[in-house]
Amino acid sequence: MSILVVGSVAFDGIKTPFGEREKILGGSATYFSVAASFFTDVRVVAVVGDDFSATEEAVFRERQIDLSDLERVAGQKSFYWQGEYGYDLNVAKTLDTRLNVFADFKPKLSDAARKTPYLFLGNIQPQLQTEVRQQVAAKIVAADTMNYWISNAKPDLLEMLKGIDILIINDAEARELAEEANLIRAAKRILTMGPKRLVVKRGEYGAAMFSPTSYFAVPAYPLEDVFDPTGAGDTFAGGFMGYIAACDSADEATMRRAIIYGSVMASFNVEKFSCERLSKLSHPEITARFRELQKITHFEEGIAPQRLAV
Amino acid sequence: MSILVVGSVAFDGIKTPFGEREKILGGSATYFSVAASFFTDVRVVAVVGDDFSATEEAVFRERQIDLSDLERVAGQKSFYWQGEYGYDLNVAKTLDTRLNVFADFKPKLSDAARKTPYLFLGNIQPQLQTEVRQQVAAKIVAADTMNYWISNAKPDLLEMLKGIDILIINDAEARELAEEANLIRAAKRILTMGPKRLVVKRGEYGAAMFSPTSYFAVPAYPLEDVFDPTGAGDTFAGGFMGYIAACDSADEATMRRAIIYGSVMASFNVEKFSCERLSKLSHPEITARFRELQKITHFEEGIAPQRLAV
Repeated sequence: MSILVVGSVAFDGIKTPFGEREKILGGSATYFSVAASFFTDVRVVAVVGDDFSATEEAVFRERQIDLSDLERVAGQKSFYWQGEYGYDLNVAKTLDTRLNVFADFKPKLSDAARKTPYLFLGNIQPQLQTEVRQQVAAKIVAADTMNYWISNAKPDLLEMLKGIDILIINDAEARELAEEANLIRAAKRILTMGPKRLVVKRGEYGAAMFSPTSYFAVPAYPLEDVFDPTGAGDTFAGGFMGYIAACDSADEATMRRAIIYGSVMASFNVEKFSCERLSKLSHPEITARFRELQKITHFEEGIAPQRLAV
Repeated sequence: MSILVVGSVAFDGIKTPFGEREKILGGSATYFSVAASFFTDVRVVAVVGDDFSATEEAVFRERQIDLSDLERVAGQKSFYWQGEYGYDLNVAKTLDTRLNVFADFKPKLSDAARKTPYLFLGNIQPQLQTEVRQQVAAKIVAADTMNYWISNAKPDLLEMLKGIDILIINDAEARELAEEANLIRAAKRILTMGPKRLVVKRGEYGAAMFSPTSYFAVPAYPLEDVFDPTGAGDTFAGGFMGYIAACDSADEATMRRAIIYGSVMASFNVEKFSCERLSKLSHPEITARFRELQKITHFEEGIAPQRLAV
């Protein structure tokens, strides 16, 4: 089944200890859709300025991503984010944010978009997420958010949460949203706010998934070279939701595999700037890392040693 | 097979957001030996003062831990550590450390101790660890250390590392020892320093194990109530080494199960002060958490969705 994503298609200025780029393709909807496109058909709802050229468009076209719902505003620039990472690569320091075309974005969905069965609400103002959600008759709706909205738009955010099935956020966001330091308790609290499932992204520590009746956790794919973590969370969400939409199933086994595919896609994304690594992925590469994650997490019950049985 | 542990048998003064104790039984050798005693016979090499009373001794006796090599110094006090934890419980703030009897500790091993086939060098001065290691004809030697020794006794520490098979340290210690922010790279570097295996304890994120040819990672057992994290690392090491010694095997499958038993024992330990929870454990409780960890980490390869196969 196909999937609709609303979020940013943007330009990033990024500095990491390993390199620097002034203006490269980025944005939550970009990373999400490229990752999801390896699993199913994807349609993007977003807004760009006239700095969005044929070069950027080609990244989407090559992955057969539907841009019919991409709004273009003449005489204006696309959303721009500038950030910097230190050696630990876990936290980005935001140097500049320019909303540009995003300041007045009012998503108008096409009829085709409104009928998409799977929907992902990328990290934008919670009120916009709710407006989009209300226009789409999706069977499964997932959303992301960030600390900024938790601090500055909590009522809107809580309203948005009531209308979704799956919330996909990171560790710190989960603790902040629930106002609870213990992640297991935080998850329980979040599951009373609307979502039936909570997926927690933990960066180099992997990911965890909570439902009222299940808990699943997986370590991250081990990487020696993390080049640029920008977009890892959206790429994770793209692999996760893309796989679920492709399977058209919401059972626990599918959800768990989806977590693995999300982890795998994110592991590729951080190896290069922008979508450079993602765009060039092959299916055998994806499958190889899925199997590698199976191997590195596998253990079996053995014989209980003597004193255990005492 | 039996296991020998050298480390501290001490008293702790602990304050957490959930409670406070002025003087309770603690120390690396204490937590290690109580945890390991659920799997195999354990013998402790340590020193205590005359504040170590029948009450503390009973904790060891009840677990059938051999105290023949426990030195008692009359007229002096046992090692004392005082620390405090905030709500995130990840980092202890040391308020006071009194070496007392530990200041002049020179471990003298009995003949029986020298013949123990499994040895754990708890977190003490690296030079003492080396002295003990040289006295024991063990087939597998594991060790712990801490940031203090990495910063202040690195040459002695590097010497100690040459004589051991398995190093069991935490995340931050691994990065500091290797002088490398990326954990996978840090592990590779540490495996050139002597140990054939590196076990990395990651607190609420679980544990990872590295050898030159394998990588294994497991999330932590999910706990809603972490009461006092003191001793979690030593309890983990006790479960890990206790299981290996009990199986008398060093193959990958045994090592992986040992990581799970270590995680399980640590998860119980943090639920109460001192060894209060550990001492009262039952074997069915241990097995139940082992199986729970199997369940929460389990996923299977499914059918590849359509677009994956394109």
